[in-house]
Amino acid sequence: MADTERKLAGGKERIDFNTDPSRYRHWKLAVDGDIATLTMDVDENAPLFEGYELKLNSYDLGVDIELADALERLRFEHPQVRVILLRSGKPRVFCAGANIRMLAGASHAHKVNFCKFTNETRNAIEDASEFSGQRMICVVTGSCAGGGYELALATDHIILTDDGSSTVALPELPLLAVLPGTGGLTRVTDKRKVRRDHADVFCTTEEGVKGRRAVEWRLVDEAVSNTKLDEVVRERAREFAAKSDRPVDAKGVALAPLDCRVGTNSRDYQFVSVEFARSERLATITLRAPDAPPPADADAMVAQGAAFWPLQLARELDDAILDIRLNEFDTAALVFRSEGDAAAVLAYDAFLDRHKDHWLAREIRLKWKRVLKRVDLTSRSLVAKIEPGSCFAGTLAELTFAADRSYMLIGRRDGDNRPPAAIALSAANFGPYPMANGLTRLQSRFLADGGALERARASIGATLEADAAEELGLVTFALDDIDWQDEIRVFLEERASFSPDALTGMEANLRFGGPETMESKIFARLTAWQNWIFQRPNAVGEEGALKRYGTGQKPVFDVKRV
Amino acid sequence: MADTERKLAGGKERIDFNTDPSRYRHWKLAVDGDIATLTMDVDENAPLFEGYELKLNSYDLGVDIELADALERLRFEHPQVRVILLRSGKPRVFCAGANIRMLAGASHAHKVNFCKFTNETRNAIEDASEFSGQRMICVVTGSCAGGGYELALATDHIILTDDGSSTVALPELPLLAVLPGTGGLTRVTDKRKVRRDHADVFCTTEEGVKGRRAVEWRLVDEAVSNTKLDEVVRERAREFAAKSDRPVDAKGVALAPLDCRVGTNSRDYQFVSVEFARSERLATITLRAPDAPPPADADAMVAQGAAFWPLQLARELDDAILDIRLNEFDTAALVFRSEGDAAAVLAYDAFLDRHKDHWLAREIRLKWKRVLKRVDLTSRSLVAKIEPGSCFAGTLAELTFAADRSYMLIGRRDGDNRPPAAIALSAANFGPYPMANGLTRLQSRFLADGGALERARASIGATLEADAAEELGLVTFALDDIDWQDEIRVFLEERASFSPDALTGMEANLRFGGPETMESKIFARLTAWQNWIFQRPNAVGEEGALKRYGTGQKPVFDVKRV
Repeated sequence: MADTERKLAGGKERIDFNTDPSRYRHWKLAVDGDIATLTMDVDENAPLFEGYELKLNSYDLGVDIELADALERLRFEHPQVRVILLRSGKPRVFCAGANIRMLAGASHAHKVNFCKFTNETRNAIEDASEFSGQRMICVVTGSCAGGGYELALATDHIILTDDGSSTVALPELPLLAVLPGTGGLTRVTDKRKVRRDHADVFCTTEEGVKGRRAVEWRLVDEAVSNTKLDEVVRERAREFAAKSDRPVDAKGVALAPLDCRVGTNSRDYQFVSVEFARSERLATITLRAPDAPPPADADAMVAQGAAFWPLQLARELDDAILDIRLNEFDTAALVFRSEGDAAAVLAYDAFLDRHKDHWLAREIRLKWKRVLKRVDLTSRSLVAKIEPGSCFAGTLAELTFAADRSYMLIGRRDGDNRPPAAIALSAANFGPYPMANGLTRLQSRFLADGGALERARASIGATLEADAAEELGLVTFALDDIDWQDEIRVFLEERASFSPDALTGMEANLRFGGPETMESKIFARLTAWQNWIFQRPNAVGEEGALKRYGTGQKPVFDVKRV
Repeated sequence: MADTERKLAGGKERIDFNTDPSRYRHWKLAVDGDIATLTMDVDENAPLFEGYELKLNSYDLGVDIELADALERLRFEHPQVRVILLRSGKPRVFCAGANIRMLAGASHAHKVNFCKFTNETRNAIEDASEFSGQRMICVVTGSCAGGGYELALATDHIILTDDGSSTVALPELPLLAVLPGTGGLTRVTDKRKVRRDHADVFCTTEEGVKGRRAVEWRLVDEAVSNTKLDEVVRERAREFAAKSDRPVDAKGVALAPLDCRVGTNSRDYQFVSVEFARSERLATITLRAPDAPPPADADAMVAQGAAFWPLQLARELDDAILDIRLNEFDTAALVFRSEGDAAAVLAYDAFLDRHKDHWLAREIRLKWKRVLKRVDLTSRSLVAKIEPGSCFAGTLAELTFAADRSYMLIGRRDGDNRPPAAIALSAANFGPYPMANGLTRLQSRFLADGGALERARASIGATLEADAAEELGLVTFALDDIDWQDEIRVFLEERASFSPDALTGMEANLRFGGPETMESKIFARLTAWQNWIFQRPNAVGEEGALKRYGTGQKPVFDVKRV
């Protein structure tokens, strides 16, 4: 595999995760009452990197960034939308999946992080369906292959045109010697519950499955003739819309562009700053408390819109994490800091909790859930530093529990008049932000000891200085100022000295104790195997299938089964 | 990584999984009433391969084959044993884990299959504890590191000598840039439920943890001073023994050596034959029905001992599978066939079910459970061919459900007077043989459709010819004789043409739909990540940590986080 990144197209230096519909090259978003139509119509001449064309509605990270953006806007800007129709803008092809030449030329690190992002986008589709009342119907016309079918699998209902040629397929294995790794294998077995021998046949059949057999094997929900297609789609849309609890007359909230000043070693948003110490392979992320109390009521929250502190902070943090993941591969550890008034943070938690049935408050908490999951899944060591002046309370305290370790300073520092560092819990730590494994971070932390969880719950609202926090098991190390700097320096140097790969594997295991869900299985069983295959010469070697695809030469395989 | 296998020591051509206590080089097994002591005392001059010494009670596959043998014998030959004490025969070291030079020089295929076998052995320890009433107490004296601690983790109770120097440690990451991949990370989080930040510290601390902290962090169950050690061990042994339901006066069954005639392209046991078609990369495994009805009663079963058909067949099948896994890496697919009287097979199932509370019948069904799990986890395509004269009934039918696909012939063949092929179910298909995911193979098969499961259950005992079996969803394809040969030939050729790695990844996903358990997590989340790391230059490259260990040179890492 090429180990150095290709060049970004258009002379860009970094991958930018910010976009909006006016800038989309690959998707069209149309809203008609409570039904939205999201049309995939990939511009083959607008790849993210140089060196390939996005033929046949194939995608790269750039295409998926637009999809992710559209899904976020549908939630926030279109509260009345209850059903999203996913369609192709191309004749005879729904989507050919991830672009193969892009994959063949991408570095391992990009490939893995590209898959992670696309997985998160598909999980967000399911999250919108389950928790936000936005159901998605996939209308497959033409061939729907690989990542295209994996996208369909993330929707609630797949309608396949029964025209004798439209198919669904997972041809990755026979064609490319890799897996349908964007949730495909797991959703086939665990979501659609396809019989495992049928799944075996399906996943080894390059040409895919059409019509009646696709329905019988549970690969699609219905196969509908061309002449009836529009009528059936309308009918299903009506049915799904009727079951949604989305508001009818609510006014949406525009997701204004994030304002970010980018320096050589920094990114500064309004409530988030990132500082890179590249020689030490560290990124320090500082989150700031709100500078004003919560609005008076839900209407005032809507009026603040994207500027409402919890929403803006979540979007800024999300962008910062994605930027590091895809643009800063050398960063070994993320250090989380916070600044400001913990009481103000808790006031916003209380506000969101009070209004949790309001559509916007619900969306904001769901957004935080997704951002925190993104943090959990970020393959960098995560550390929280809890010092005087910090505000790790409620929602922000989740970052200390997401961290692999947290360090908390005991008492005051000489010459610092601020009160000692403290953390505080709120109801937000006990429910709304489950991890991919279905447990809250505190449940995951206290797997051994339900009593510890209850003691933590009983402390809700209390100001917990270092001794109390340590006693409750909420921080890893409470240190006084004499040890603070050395301990943390040694730890971070050590972390930077370890094998990045071994750390990735270790953290992927230790962060997700306890139960597995379909979502966590995708990132564990499926992704880990795919990453393995992405290292194997049979896929990525000079004679491997990914490299040889489209050259007319057959791949040459080492036949050993491992 | 070396891609060619090292030479086996002693001029051997194949790895042999058969042994017995008289031949052990590395373990001592002593039985005293209801307490057995299993002492690890590795002979450093008896490695399985040439080129390394097994210092400091480190192990290779040869050591683990003896351990697995001892555990089997404790179950069958020593029905009165209720507690097994696991101890070290070396001063100052309990066990240093898997031998690093062995790992550094092993091919990827051997390394992965070595880990799989050791994982299965540790799972068998837990199975004996949960289902067979044999509890294991690990007495840690000296340093217990890496795979040594992973072995301890598989036991019920870990007693650490509190002598100021004895430690438990998982130093794989800091020392070798790999994971504690024999269940270590998963058992730390999911079995011992160590807090995840403590686990992070523990797994990155080369020197390990001792005494009180090891107890506080839940890494061991108790730390006991040298002077009190023997007394505490005796006391715990008594406590655990008192809770066991093992029989008091039963006579054990000697596990006689398996009789196997090995030819160039075949292995012939009494009830199992393996035929290798190496140019086609196929191994055909034929299982034969019993040639006599079940014994009259449980005493007669005990009198038959290891010759009792279900036990002998299970042992032969297990040996055949292990032989292929470790000695025949080029084999792409295993084809299961069976021969004989299905009614006789069902009669044995009924016998075992009737006597399921008898200790030996219980052990035999537990053995079958483990053998079938071994089949599930074998990274070769699994195919069942169901033809006239076959006897895939009850327990043997499990192999057709373990298979990735099954093919069943419709009707008779010209010139063959035998009745058409049929399968039959028994109670054995609905409970005693769960997979690693906790479901039976039929539950896994019918995840989508509880009704299908109930229809299958209602067919227990019926002779199901091809149409009926297909209607019930029990076979993948029912074919008549005209299509039979071509369909299967094309399928097997196709399978041999695919990337072996992609097949391994696909099968590892499709075979384990539905829930995950700690056991399945070990083979999915943990093993898949470890296999990835075993491919990464940071571990196995010329400058990687595994290669450089012990050379005095530091490893050089590519610092990209993936």
